Amino acid sequence: MRSAAKLDKIVDDFRAGNTAATGRLLSIMENGGPEAERVIEKILPDIKGIYRIGFTGPPGAGKSTLISRLASYYRKQDEKLGIIVVDPSSPFSGGALLGDRVRMQNLSSDPGIFVRSLANRGTLGGISNCTDEAVDIFDASGKDVVFIETVGVGQSELAVAEKTHTVVVILVPESGDGIQAMKAGLMEIGDIFVMNKSDHQDAGMAAREIEASLKMKRVEEGDWEPRVILTSGLKDEGVDRLKESLDQHRKYLEDSGLMKRKRREILYSRVRSALIDRLDRRIRSSRRITELVEARMEDVYHSRISPYTLVHEIDSMIKIE
Amino acid sequence: MRSAAKLDKIVDDFRAGNTAATGRLLSIMENGGPEAERVIEKILPDIKGIYRIGFTGPPGAGKSTLISRLASYYRKQDEKLGIIVVDPSSPFSGGALLGDRVRMQNLSSDPGIFVRSLANRGTLGGISNCTDEAVDIFDASGKDVVFIETVGVGQSELAVAEKTHTVVVILVPESGDGIQAMKAGLMEIGDIFVMNKSDHQDAGMAAREIEASLKMKRVEEGDWEPRVILTSGLKDEGVDRLKESLDQHRKYLEDSGLMKRKRREILYSRVRSALIDRLDRRIRSSRRITELVEARMEDVYHSRISPYTLVHEIDSMIKIE
Repeated sequence: MRSAAKLDKIVDDFRAGNTAATGRLLSIMENGGPEAERVIEKILPDIKGIYRIGFTGPPGAGKSTLISRLASYYRKQDEKLGIIVVDPSSPFSGGALLGDRVRMQNLSSDPGIFVRSLANRGTLGGISNCTDEAVDIFDASGKDVVFIETVGVGQSELAVAEKTHTVVVILVPESGDGIQAMKAGLMEIGDIFVMNKSDHQDAGMAAREIEASLKMKRVEEGDWEPRVILTSGLKDEGVDRLKESLDQHRKYLEDSGLMKRKRREILYSRVRSALIDRLDRRIRSSRRITELVEARMEDVYHSRISPYTLVHEIDSMIKIE
Repeated sequence: MRSAAKLDKIVDDFRAGNTAATGRLLSIMENGGPEAERVIEKILPDIKGIYRIGFTGPPGAGKSTLISRLASYYRKQDEKLGIIVVDPSSPFSGGALLGDRVRMQNLSSDPGIFVRSLANRGTLGGISNCTDEAVDIFDASGKDVVFIETVGVGQSELAVAEKTHTVVVILVPESGDGIQAMKAGLMEIGDIFVMNKSDHQDAGMAAREIEASLKMKRVEEGDWEPRVILTSGLKDEGVDRLKESLDQHRKYLEDSGLMKRKRREILYSRVRSALIDRLDRRIRSSRRITELVEARMEDVYHSRISPYTLVHEIDSMIKIE
């Protein structure tokens, strides 16, 4: 643990716009614990509730390239960007991910962009807490928007929808991505769908499939209508239209009051998962509960009692006012 | 809620081997709540700790076809099977998933196989509880093995690893699945890797890539060495070797004592997530906490207090013995 004075110094440097200090604060966020909490308390007055865009879609959809390209459109309008790449943590993934990181790091010569890759710790609420805290750092550092990219078709992008204002689902016209997106529940969470690799022969048809299935969703008068955009991250095609749609969605969120409501929801889910993390830790460090669990797990193992009986026993040792 | 007598009747029919009763109990498990708990209590003596195999991999890898084929090899050896397909719940997915269901339902004319599709509710511990309970039903019904298939490349298959004894990762030699698997952390969780669609021109190379990256993982003397098997679910090629490897892994688990240890771990994680679900519900139904949260969320929203301050305030209203 750093001394309080040392932590103050990093925060002061951060406030003065020092990029290295920003990086150090992000590492502190990643480590979590009381030090991270102290940093958040210190920078609290600078946290305004930054606009968050989530990017998700199956692996191999060209997300990193497209996001790098999109970033330059934000920079053209002088919007400052924080980019968070949520990586599943894996000792195997070092090499595989290097490509993405290199693509992204090219952006980092621009002081208006800060790219940070965060490991998805895969624990209860683990990703989310750390992501929220990294967003706070970008927020307090005066960025205008934060991108959150997740890899995966599964639970992780349902989490990204909970943590962002706008969700961009990136698909490619290969291996039946459209149907796969439906399977994975991506259709519900997308505000904007991107069919990347637009020069692929099946791109138009794949986009129309997505459009057709979006029409199955009932949209009320005045609601945002999810749309499909053909892009090529590699050739920089259609990325301007993606930026336009993103601006339109942001305006829609602001005009409808949804921006504020989403911020409340994001904060509420953050409080909830931080609380659950905390309780989980408290329960595991309770000696009486640990002793009970050790004694009774044997009974559960031999089907002498059900797992529920043990849950009730533990539960009765926890009092809620 | 059914009357106790009605529930008893269903359980009695289930015990007598009535398939319709099995289906009804599985529905009760899906709905959860006190009725599900009561059923588990009733069938507790019949729960032995069934052997569980998890199947995971990216969408489009041909999992359902391969699993259906593999099932017939289990049946040839007169092993009775329960199959659980975990679907991401989505109003859009009805049509898309139908294909899988139809493929699987073909199996259901065999009384030695029971297929059940469960919606992944995506809530805290939501999937897992319901999956464990469905497994209990299959266990008590005298099945010899249960297959759990999840769709996705993300968090969901880390969950499947926590819930099973053996994990089969199914990949195809398309769109760089090997690298994608590494990205998604699949390399850590697989005991057996299947390169499906073995007639694809790149299948051999893709399999060797996976093998090469598996060699990066240090294996201690006597440990299981993860292997790669080329199969074609469609043409029924290599599925016999997959069955052999599964039998070998099962034997390895039994000989090494890992089978028992894994069962303990599965039960422990089940107790933990059921407890967290329960606490989450209790917290949300506490009037004092709800009032506090309503009052203080406004302060969090305006950065007057940090989310942590609110978490500490709620936390102090919860006493753990």
